[in-house]
Amino acid sequence: MKITIAAIGIIRSRRRSQEFQRLADEYTVRASRYLDCDQRFFETEFALMKEVDQPGGRMAPHLILLDSTGKALTSGEFAAHIGQCRDRGVQRTVLALGPPNGWSSEARLRANLMFSLGRVTLPHELARAVLAEQVYRALTILSGHPYHSGH
Amino acid sequence: MKITIAAIGIIRSRRRSQEFQRLADEYTVRASRYLDCDQRFFETEFALMKEVDQPGGRMAPHLILLDSTGKALTSGEFAAHIGQCRDRGVQRTVLALGPPNGWSSEARLRANLMFSLGRVTLPHELARAVLAEQVYRALTILSGHPYHSGH
Repeated sequence: MKITIAAIGIIRSRRRSQEFQRLADEYTVRASRYLDCDQRFFETEFALMKEVDQPGGRMAPHLILLDSTGKALTSGEFAAHIGQCRDRGVQRTVLALGPPNGWSSEARLRANLMFSLGRVTLPHELARAVLAEQVYRALTILSGHPYHSGH
Repeated sequence: MKITIAAIGIIRSRRRSQEFQRLADEYTVRASRYLDCDQRFFETEFALMKEVDQPGGRMAPHLILLDSTGKALTSGEFAAHIGQCRDRGVQRTVLALGPPNGWSSEARLRANLMFSLGRVTLPHELARAVLAEQVYRALTILSGHPYHSGH
């Protein structure tokens, strides 16, 4: 299974986001020790959804949309969800951080899971670092690595 | 009112935590435009509680302990809570991230609020950056600055 961490409406090169980017990069690299992981940037929700559900060919990916009103899972529950995807033969899971004005109802209907990192509002770039850390944490939990129990 | 962001059991100089520290520093500096804010590091919960409730002299601070099982406030609700403290003449508010094994029952009983940033587990250093960002966000909300509505 491949995991993609997607963000919408973030300009990657913005100077003030370097610390955020370094953190997201670091956790994505660490997560890649367990499963193929990458980060993708989309200008709009439309561009993301078009890429996710391109006609013909591959199996539609498992789509997890991040939203503060979504399901508030613990890190262990999130890991179990990712583990189920992997064990059921899902080829690709896309985790996406929303556009500044929130997800459209079409995107919400398409999503396999709406996932909340918390009720507080985070800047998108900080949320991306947190999400990448959760993906890394989930993969360590699934592999029995002591990272999660050490925090 | 002075706001202190306190952390327990974090060694400040650890090399891998530089990005986290830069982020926490940046948000603390930004928050200081609105109210006097600082960061403090304690080796143990005991050291924190001793400092918080030193006998004689000053008014006991308003104590907010961060805990994943605490009250999950939105950023707006958290801002309202901080605003109430300020408006009621609280001289000092201490926000503290817990020790790795969680808060003791004594600390929980002393706390004025147990506050949850979310059900997921974060590394303490990343949680500190998130907390500093929430303090900055709360102060912008209270002052009517457009930061919060822009995200």
